[in-house]
Amino acid sequence: MTAPLTVALLGGGTVGASVAQLLGEQAEELAARIGRPIVLTGVAVRNPDKARPGVPADLITTDVAALAASGADIVVEVIGGIEPAKTLIETAITNGSSVVTANKALLAAHGASLHALAEKHGVDLFYEAAVAGAIPLLRPLRESLAGDTVRRVLGIVNGTTNFILSKMYNDGADYATVLKQAQDLGYAEADPTADVEGFDSAAKAAILAGLAFHTDVTSDDVYREGMSTVSADDIAAARAMGMVIKLLAIAELSEDNSGVIVRVHPAMIPVTHPLASVRDAFNAVFVEAEAAGDVMFYGRGAGGHPTASSVLGDVVVAARNRVAGYVDHSHSTYADLKVLTIGDAQTSYYLNLQVADEPGVLAAIANEFAKHEVSIQTVLQDGHGNSANLVITTHHATDKQLSETVEGLRGLSAVREVSGVMRVEGRAN
Amino acid sequence: MTAPLTVALLGGGTVGASVAQLLGEQAEELAARIGRPIVLTGVAVRNPDKARPGVPADLITTDVAALAASGADIVVEVIGGIEPAKTLIETAITNGSSVVTANKALLAAHGASLHALAEKHGVDLFYEAAVAGAIPLLRPLRESLAGDTVRRVLGIVNGTTNFILSKMYNDGADYATVLKQAQDLGYAEADPTADVEGFDSAAKAAILAGLAFHTDVTSDDVYREGMSTVSADDIAAARAMGMVIKLLAIAELSEDNSGVIVRVHPAMIPVTHPLASVRDAFNAVFVEAEAAGDVMFYGRGAGGHPTASSVLGDVVVAARNRVAGYVDHSHSTYADLKVLTIGDAQTSYYLNLQVADEPGVLAAIANEFAKHEVSIQTVLQDGHGNSANLVITTHHATDKQLSETVEGLRGLSAVREVSGVMRVEGRAN
Repeated sequence: MTAPLTVALLGGGTVGASVAQLLGEQAEELAARIGRPIVLTGVAVRNPDKARPGVPADLITTDVAALAASGADIVVEVIGGIEPAKTLIETAITNGSSVVTANKALLAAHGASLHALAEKHGVDLFYEAAVAGAIPLLRPLRESLAGDTVRRVLGIVNGTTNFILSKMYNDGADYATVLKQAQDLGYAEADPTADVEGFDSAAKAAILAGLAFHTDVTSDDVYREGMSTVSADDIAAARAMGMVIKLLAIAELSEDNSGVIVRVHPAMIPVTHPLASVRDAFNAVFVEAEAAGDVMFYGRGAGGHPTASSVLGDVVVAARNRVAGYVDHSHSTYADLKVLTIGDAQTSYYLNLQVADEPGVLAAIANEFAKHEVSIQTVLQDGHGNSANLVITTHHATDKQLSETVEGLRGLSAVREVSGVMRVEGRAN
Repeated sequence: MTAPLTVALLGGGTVGASVAQLLGEQAEELAARIGRPIVLTGVAVRNPDKARPGVPADLITTDVAALAASGADIVVEVIGGIEPAKTLIETAITNGSSVVTANKALLAAHGASLHALAEKHGVDLFYEAAVAGAIPLLRPLRESLAGDTVRRVLGIVNGTTNFILSKMYNDGADYATVLKQAQDLGYAEADPTADVEGFDSAAKAAILAGLAFHTDVTSDDVYREGMSTVSADDIAAARAMGMVIKLLAIAELSEDNSGVIVRVHPAMIPVTHPLASVRDAFNAVFVEAEAAGDVMFYGRGAGGHPTASSVLGDVVVAARNRVAGYVDHSHSTYADLKVLTIGDAQTSYYLNLQVADEPGVLAAIANEFAKHEVSIQTVLQDGHGNSANLVITTHHATDKQLSETVEGLRGLSAVREVSGVMRVEGRAN
C-alpha cells in the first residue's frame, strides 16, 4: 500500500471523540475497505486540558483554523452551529480537502453555497450524519432512489420529542411532567426550544426536501409548529381513534407537481402505520415513491457512536473517491421547484369541539365545513349536561380550507371552544 | 448535452416491462440526474408477439446474445436463473458494458467470478434489486455502514412466506389452508418450494452476508430450514409468549470474530422487535452494527415497479460513473472469513414437550438441559389428565448444545413427544 490518506478532525466533543476512537480501533479494516491506510493528523478542540478517552493526546490542537487549512485529504467537521463551522469548511474546501460534516443547521442554511464551492474545487461534501444520525438515508435517497420519483417523505427525526410523545402516550402524563423527566434523563436540554419547537426537525426537513426533490430548500422555507401544545386530551383522543401522535417532518411534492411543501408539526398517524411503532429516542424516515412504493429507514438518531458510524461511512466513501480520483456529482438542484406555503398542503384535520347541547348545533357545524368544501369523515359526540364534546375528523382538503373552517367554527355561537386541532397524516397500513 | 448513454435490456417480463416503461416516462428527470440523456437500445424477449405495454415495439428483439454483446453503456439483466443469464452477463462485461441485474440466484452462486470479471474489464456490476426488491439496502451496507462493524443482519426477505406466516398468525389458520389462499391470490407459486423451503431467502442471505462481512459466501454455505413445518400450535405458543414467528435470513459474525454463520429458518421474535410488525408481503432487513446500533430498512420486496425502481437506481449510478469515467470499487472480500456451521450459532430455543404428569419428570428434564450446559429461561406447565404440556425457553447457547439437548430429551422415557422446537431471535425492544 502507498502513502496514507489524511483526516483532520475539527471538534472533540462526544461525536468527535467517537470518530477518533473508531478511526484508531478500525484502522486495519478501514485500510482494507479503502485500499489505502488512513491516518488522523489532528483533532482541534477548544479546551486541550479536558480528558478525551480514545483521542491520541499528541494530535490535540487548539488551532482549528490551521487544521482546517492543512490540506488533509478529508476534513471532518463536528463542531456544529453556523460559525465558525462555515468559515472552517470553506477554508478546508478551498485548500482541496473533501469535507464530511454532521452539521444540519449549517447545511440547511448554506447548503447551496457550500455545494457550489465544493463543486468548484473538485472535492466531496458529505453529511449523512446531519439527518437521523446513524441511519443510512441521504445516500439511499440520492442514489438508490435516483431512478424513481419521490412523492412524500415523512420523518421522525428528533429523538427528544419522540421520547416525550412516547412517554405521554404510554403513561398518560402531561407535557410538563414528561419534559422534566426527559431533562433529568439527559434526553432533553435545559433549554429544550430547539427540539420541542421543531427547529431541529425543520433543519433536517429542509435537507431531506432538497435531496428528495432536487431543489434548494432552506430552514426558512419550512413551516414549523412545535409539540409543546400537545395535550394529554389530544393523546387520549388519538388513542380512542386508533392513532398515535408524532412530531413529523414532512417534505412533499404538491399534487400538480408544481412545487414542494415542507412542514414540521405534531400529527396523528394510524397505529398500524410503520412510523407509529417508532418509539422513544429512535428515528425513522418513511418515503413514498412512485415506483418503489413505501420504504422506511429506522435507527438511532443521535449519540456519539451512532453519529460517528455515519461520519465514518462518509469518510470511507470520500477516501475511496480520493484513491480513484473521483468526485461525487450526485447532488443536484436541477428541478428548482417553488417552495409552496402550508396553505397548499393537502391534509386532514382532527378537531375537538366543546359545543352547546341543543338542537341544530350539528347542522350549523356541518354547514361551516360545507362552506369551505371540507368533507367530514367521522363525528363522535359525547354529551354531558347542557354541553357536548364533538370529535370530528375530515377527509383531505387544503390546509387553507381546513384552517379557514376552524376559524369559522370559532365564530359560531354554539361552539364554546375549539380545544384540539391536529393534522392527520399517513395512510393506514 | 452530449451523446446519450445507451441501455440494453435483457428480459421483458414484469420487471423488464416496468424498467422500459419508467426509462421512457422519466427520460427528462433521469437525464438531469445523470448529466447526459439515456436511451433504451433494445429489449430482448423470448416471445416477440406478446403484448408488452410501455415497451416500444421497435426495440423488441429475440436475439438476446447479440443485444448482450452490443457494447451498450449499461446492460440490464432481468431474465433470472443461472443460465443463460450468466453467459449473457459475462458477454456484456467482456464487451465493456456495466451490468445491472436483479438476479439473486446467480449472484449467490457466482458472485465472486462475476465481480472478478467486472473488475478486470473496468465496469460496474450492481444488483440492488436482488435482495429485498425496492428497499435500498446493498448500497447502504456497502457505503453508509462502511466505517462500522456489522455484527448481525436479520432479514425478512421473502414476501410469500411472510404473507403466509402473517395470515396464520392473524387467522389462526393452518399452513395448508393459508398456502392455498396465497396461491389463489398470486402471492405464492403453484410450486412454492423455492419460497417456503427457504431457497429464495438463502440466496439473499448469502448476498447480504458477503456484503456485510466482506467475505465470499454462496447459497451452498447457508444453513436452511423451510417454514412448512410451522404449525398452528407453534403460532399459538408464540402468541402466548408475546412472540411472532417469521422466516428469517440471518448472517452473523461469530462471537470470537473468527467466522460468519449464515442461516435461514423460522424463528420466534418478540412482538416489540421492529421486525415483528413487518406484515404481509413486505420485507425488512434489521442490521446490528457496533457503532450505529440497530438500523432497519423496510419496504416492498417484490413486484414489477418496486423492483424496477431499484434497477433504475443502479442504472443511474452506473450511468453517472460512466459520465465521470469512474468505476465503483466498494465490493471487497478482504476479510475472507471462514463460514461456520449452524452448530456454532449462538441462539435460544423454544421447546414444546408432551410429558408424563408424574413426580420427578421436571427434574429429569432439567437434568438433561444441565448435562449440555444449557440454561433454562422459562418453563410453563399445563397439565391435563395423566400427561402434561411443558413449554420451555432457553437462554443463549450454541445450536449444537441445544440440538443435542433436544436429542437427549427425545430419549427420556418421561417425554412422550417433542411437538415443537424453534429458535428464538432478536432482543426485545
